[in-house]
Amino acid sequence: MDATRTSSAPLDPASMSPDALAAEVARRMWDGDRATQALGMELLEVRAGYARIRMPIRRDMTNGHGICHGGYMFLLADSTFAFACNSHNQRAVAASAEIHFIASAHEGDVLTAEGVEQHLAGRSGVYDMRVTDQTGRLIALFRGKSATIKGQFVEPPAGLDAKE
Amino acid sequence: MDATRTSSAPLDPASMSPDALAAEVARRMWDGDRATQALGMELLEVRAGYARIRMPIRRDMTNGHGICHGGYMFLLADSTFAFACNSHNQRAVAASAEIHFIASAHEGDVLTAEGVEQHLAGRSGVYDMRVTDQTGRLIALFRGKSATIKGQFVEPPAGLDAKE
Amino acid sequence: MDATRTSSAPLDPASMSPDALAAEVARRMWDGDRATQALGMELLEVRAGYARIRMPIRRDMTNGHGICHGGYMFLLADSTFAFACNSHNQRAVAASAEIHFIASAHEGDVLTAEGVEQHLAGRSGVYDMRVTDQTGRLIALFRGKSATIKGQFVEPPAGLDAKE
Amino acid sequence: MDATRTSSAPLDPASMSPDALAAEVARRMWDGDRATQALGMELLEVRAGYARIRMPIRRDMTNGHGICHGGYMFLLADSTFAFACNSHNQRAVAASAEIHFIASAHEGDVLTAEGVEQHLAGRSGVYDMRVTDQTGRLIALFRGKSATIKGQFVEPPAGLDAKE
Repeated sequence: MDATRTSSAPLDPASMSPDALAAEVARRMWDGDRATQALGMELLEVRAGYARIRMPIRRDMTNGHGICHGGYMFLLADSTFAFACNSHNQRAVAASAEIHFIASAHEGDVLTAEGVEQHLAGRSGVYDMRVTDQTGRLIALFRGKSATIKGQFVEPPAGLDAKE
Repeated sequence: MDATRTSSAPLDPASMSPDALAAEVARRMWDGDRATQALGMELLEVRAGYARIRMPIRRDMTNGHGICHGGYMFLLADSTFAFACNSHNQRAVAASAEIHFIASAHEGDVLTAEGVEQHLAGRSGVYDMRVTDQTGRLIALFRGKSATIKGQFVEPPAGLDAKE
Repeated sequence: MDATRTSSAPLDPASMSPDALAAEVARRMWDGDRATQALGMELLEVRAGYARIRMPIRRDMTNGHGICHGGYMFLLADSTFAFACNSHNQRAVAASAEIHFIASAHEGDVLTAEGVEQHLAGRSGVYDMRVTDQTGRLIALFRGKSATIKGQFVEPPAGLDAKE
Repeated sequence: MDATRTSSAPLDPASMSPDALAAEVARRMWDGDRATQALGMELLEVRAGYARIRMPIRRDMTNGHGICHGGYMFLLADSTFAFACNSHNQRAVAASAEIHFIASAHEGDVLTAEGVEQHLAGRSGVYDMRVTDQTGRLIALFRGKSATIKGQFVEPPAGLDAKE
């Protein structure tokens, strides 16, 4: 993510393109998201209703079968879901999710989750995430339902019509 | 878990009670499960078709909304699922899972997942996990489908009928 | 269901027990539910947060494999879900559902779905339905998420404080 | 579906294109599928790993809220799933399914479900079905997991190398 924006002028979400707004939202989400940072994730791309994140599988992500704990595949997809469903600047959380585990992954594999908005209306959205490894092999399919909550990442500037 | 068993005699799964076998399987799974160990989980109870695991929510498990990343709730439930569905000594992995996020959790909360076998026949099982916090409040409901794979944790001793 | 109530006095939901209210709601829902009636379902029991419905599998419910179409197992569970999640008198609809098909059923089998509320808070609820056959064998497990909508089945009587 | 094939020569699945085989499988499935026929479904298209089915919403498919019973949306999607996951000639059944109800439908609406194979390996497949109405509005999203069972719809001809 480009974090070099240095302008001190407040951003007005209403004047930004949907994709620029999504990028700004992601920058702010990322800064506060300790879980995603601590897991070594890399945000590859974000647009309105879309996100793509990469995560290498570390040894401490493997389970008693010697393979990647399915929970970390879920975590990667869930973070991607979060960036996709918050990309419109309206805060949203996961209400439910289903994951199908297709193939196993191992230490050293690099997984990528791509999240695409399937539907958004009212307070609810449905997003599909595909998790693949570095060879493009399908690892997991994840579908999440989002619910908006109060708050925005980029707030409309106050006092636009006030005398200054 | 009681890890004080010191007998050098090989265990014979066929002569163990289902619950004793589940405890021995859990002990062996736990030793190899880096993911579960690294997350600070504590295995509170395991029986045939049942497991209960506790995990405190650390700061590095919180997300961009300042609350526990849903992926860590999933991870806790998924580990509990793994201990429950492997408890019969036949190796099994998660084939799919659905989670409903009911309430948010915060840094410092201590979550407990209780996993109960709903059905097991042939190679497939269905398990329900309830995640609650330290006050008993329901945090998440998780249902997982398991599929057995090859291998057992406690192998029948070889050569029992061979001359020695 | 007992449909013999003949009193002409308007019912006041606030003065009814939760289970009596559930029974009255079910009576009114049933009258308008052409789908459930046409399928030969029988409402065996309804309480607050609970319902149990029975349905015989007819020949026209079998599919190309010669067994009961899974969609009819879903329908039975979904109707049971509807009676359980509307039982508090607040109208609710299914937002999502997951079903695990455990065993097949055949023409002439009589399936029963039992639905139990797992959680209800705000506008959302989670309900679990178990579908069994006439021998008690588990046929399917269904979990549904409900969302309340506007309207009640039993409306509070109007003009209670008006002169009469 | 074109049901005009009149050749008496036995079909050899190994010599058919995947799409021609899918069409022949569908023809045979349809003939035995009382449930799908009785519901007034129309098979619009079938290919290898793909199916599209249309169904008008009749009055007897409406529920106590006066709208299409969600179970019938599921049934339409589930039948589409069946035609898609059996299209490779290997018999398969639904192991589990999740449905998200997006919008309501009413008597007289004509719903179409389009099913697409997301993954197929070994005995398991994952298929996504989208249900839309006659205006193209999204009504429901359905994801199903299939499991193959024994048997094929079009059997390889016996005795090909026998003297005749």
